[in-house]
Amino acid sequence: MPTPEPLRRTRPVMREHLGDVLRLIRRSQGRTLREVSASAEVSLGYLSEIERGQKEASSELLYAICRALGVPLSIVLREVAERIAAYEGVAVPDTVPDNLVASAVVATS
Amino acid sequence: MPTPEPLRRTRPVMREHLGDVLRLIRRSQGRTLREVSASAEVSLGYLSEIERGQKEASSELLYAICRALGVPLSIVLREVAERIAAYEGVAVPDTVPDNLVASAVVATS
Repeated sequence: MPTPEPLRRTRPVMREHLGDVLRLIRRSQGRTLREVSASAEVSLGYLSEIERGQKEASSELLYAICRALGVPLSIVLREVAERIAAYEGVAVPDTVPDNLVASAVVATS
Repeated sequence: MPTPEPLRRTRPVMREHLGDVLRLIRRSQGRTLREVSASAEVSLGYLSEIERGQKEASSELLYAICRALGVPLSIVLREVAERIAAYEGVAVPDTVPDNLVASAVVATS
């Protein structure tokens, strides 16, 4: 039997993209969860859950994490927006749009 | 005595910008809080608090509101990022940066 495909996401989950971006920035700086959590005054466990997209960060906490990372909040949000845009943009429609079908008919006739 | 200036914000609060953007989109569509809250399956009061920046929206709720508004989440986040960038960009530094001082010295010498 073939391996079943992983479940397809039906929607972009912002906190997961946000967590990915925050972790990427932290790792790119060679910093540990411990260092950044201490600087942002958030528990190590909570920061870890945010990075894994398991907890929502309040606006204040998100700001504190960005400050601890030394990166503007707007840069982080832009990156999150781009990742979600890529997700939204590559969504494959379930059916072939009518205008594409019409083009194909014209092309082969 | 002069009227005291309003307190200056010391940081951008994401949920306030997010609320402003969501309200702007809803109003631009001529839709009421009642209509959008029903479509997003969120209480009218909660949606109102989100629009006023008084409550954080979870990732799932934010997605539901965007869907109810018929606007991609990425578009909303980009607009929020731009607003925060404008805020962060207009922050006046406490001191004149060294390179600007050097330029001024060159220009006047």
